[in-house]
Amino acid sequence: MSAQRRLVILAEGNFGFHHGKTAVGVIRYGSDDVRAVIDSTQAGGNVSSLLPGRDIPIVATLGEALAREPRPDTLLIGIAPTGGRLPDSWRATILASIQAGLDVHSGLHTFLGDDPEFAAAAREAGTVIVDHRRPPARMETSVGRGHEPGKRVILTVGTDCAIGKMSVALELRSAAVAAGHSTSFVPTGQTGMMIEGWGVAVDRLISDFAQGTVEWMVEEGERRGDWVIVEGQGSLDHPAYSSVTLALIHGATPQAMVLVHKAGQVEHDFDHLPEASFPIAELRPFIDLHERVAGLIAPSKIVAVALNTSAIASDADARTEIARIATETGLPVDDPVRFGGGPLWSEIEAAVERLPWVAGR
Amino acid sequence: MSAQRRLVILAEGNFGFHHGKTAVGVIRYGSDDVRAVIDSTQAGGNVSSLLPGRDIPIVATLGEALAREPRPDTLLIGIAPTGGRLPDSWRATILASIQAGLDVHSGLHTFLGDDPEFAAAAREAGTVIVDHRRPPARMETSVGRGHEPGKRVILTVGTDCAIGKMSVALELRSAAVAAGHSTSFVPTGQTGMMIEGWGVAVDRLISDFAQGTVEWMVEEGERRGDWVIVEGQGSLDHPAYSSVTLALIHGATPQAMVLVHKAGQVEHDFDHLPEASFPIAELRPFIDLHERVAGLIAPSKIVAVALNTSAIASDADARTEIARIATETGLPVDDPVRFGGGPLWSEIEAAVERLPWVAGR
Repeated sequence: MSAQRRLVILAEGNFGFHHGKTAVGVIRYGSDDVRAVIDSTQAGGNVSSLLPGRDIPIVATLGEALAREPRPDTLLIGIAPTGGRLPDSWRATILASIQAGLDVHSGLHTFLGDDPEFAAAAREAGTVIVDHRRPPARMETSVGRGHEPGKRVILTVGTDCAIGKMSVALELRSAAVAAGHSTSFVPTGQTGMMIEGWGVAVDRLISDFAQGTVEWMVEEGERRGDWVIVEGQGSLDHPAYSSVTLALIHGATPQAMVLVHKAGQVEHDFDHLPEASFPIAELRPFIDLHERVAGLIAPSKIVAVALNTSAIASDADARTEIARIATETGLPVDDPVRFGGGPLWSEIEAAVERLPWVAGR
Repeated sequence: MSAQRRLVILAEGNFGFHHGKTAVGVIRYGSDDVRAVIDSTQAGGNVSSLLPGRDIPIVATLGEALAREPRPDTLLIGIAPTGGRLPDSWRATILASIQAGLDVHSGLHTFLGDDPEFAAAAREAGTVIVDHRRPPARMETSVGRGHEPGKRVILTVGTDCAIGKMSVALELRSAAVAAGHSTSFVPTGQTGMMIEGWGVAVDRLISDFAQGTVEWMVEEGERRGDWVIVEGQGSLDHPAYSSVTLALIHGATPQAMVLVHKAGQVEHDFDHLPEASFPIAELRPFIDLHERVAGLIAPSKIVAVALNTSAIASDADARTEIARIATETGLPVDDPVRFGGGPLWSEIEAAVERLPWVAGR
């Protein structure tokens, strides 16, 4: 998305931090002009209630979104449901958007471009449908590529899905750039891809090629910056997605990692059988295990914890919890999304340069 | 493959234990009648030189294979190259087979059934093309399913690819059946699938659905037997495939694992950049790490080591190495492929029944 687009984001029934994280991410970090969000359950509201400073109306229908000047030119599908399937109720909205001349950008597992009705409508309207989760044609396995001299690769890892690994990576990238470093962000999910305009949705890759794909994505990241911040996915202990996490750890071979954790969370949040229970890991042993697992291929260290304090109302209480986690883990801790990425970035940069496998390279 | 087929196996230039492992596996463990192997580089030879007791001619051409009575009815593609792509030189052979009325069974990543020329020829000849690596239509994520009462799930893990995880699993299944247990083998690779007639090639699954798919494969395994032996893939420290290994560990949540290791192997064997080096793991710490990683989701223990002693010429020397590894790891060790699965199975069965998370369930 190089030229700025005018987006209407479809997030029906789901606009918010958890199920609407694509919408939130694109609004918060993207460079496009978001004209409206469609969510009839919050119609009449404004995005600024959730994201201060972002004056964007929430409307009930596509018609209302199209009535806004300047007129949107792109419909972005802003939900991220489990499995990524398209709700039937949305077909009419998507079809009407195409017929109204909008391009459609989607991150769903179901490829809208392969839908005969949508494809035919797009051909007739002269518009495009972009499925960001469509895997690349290039299918390769890892070749054991190392990092170019002078490159620093960092991966965000987490104690669960959907707790801010992407947001933390983007905040750190901003802070690194502000500190004068040439820094790239490697998108590994559909939201990050929509924000940056490149990348691959690693959860959509064929297993045999996942690590090889991550390997060349990092190679591309090294072309775009000296510091390379790779967006993490899943968690090493996630019953459904841990293999995607390991594909990133072993495919990217980051010299350092940043652990993202949500304060107050006690259980993994995903659709599982009610009789099963999956507690969030205790941090210190989990940090050690990440380092041992990463070290099977290349040495790595978790150099900081980025704490998601969104469940804590006051800044003072958030600071207290940050300090507690710092004591518990023995690592620098901050909430870069809440308080800005500068301080945490300084700690990370210093720690990385001291690593034995980085120093002097 | 329920009714017995008459197979000709295409393994041109590759018949042997490493690159021809599908051919070897199907001959050694399958229930079909293998009429000939096509490999012009070994034409005139006989499979019995490699697999004692298997009197199957190695021929140079399809024509020679078709001349044998009773005539073959199926061509099986017996190679497993990196990435699974079809050598161009084989197109003529496959086309001629179809035109001669043979079904084609393939485990390649490139789906022969999607090839317009092959598909048209098959339609005209009234034959079928089966691509065993084609993923199932069913795409689901894990739901945290536990094991039914009375079920015992074992996974083979390894220190590298292509060292015998499938063969060990099949030998143990045979031994368990001989000991009177209802036992199933869960195929996770194209070779195992061709042998058993069911299963899913997990390396071909979309990452997001890998663990969920393994979860329901084990559910099917539990329907077919009380002891469920799951075929492992990759290794936890493989630069290219470790994520597939973790998808099996966390998707199958085996109560126990059997570590497969090849005596004398010092480096991972795969196509990687020459400047990179990936040593085989030291066994005891690797065993501990498997248990910690598995334990992130459900408790598991490596209860035995199956040693591949194929690089050791004499049985006596093989026994010496087996004893050495037993001392090194503190676990029961044997080579079930060389010496039969009975003794190792007895050790495994006893150890599993003593596990705290198994006893009494």
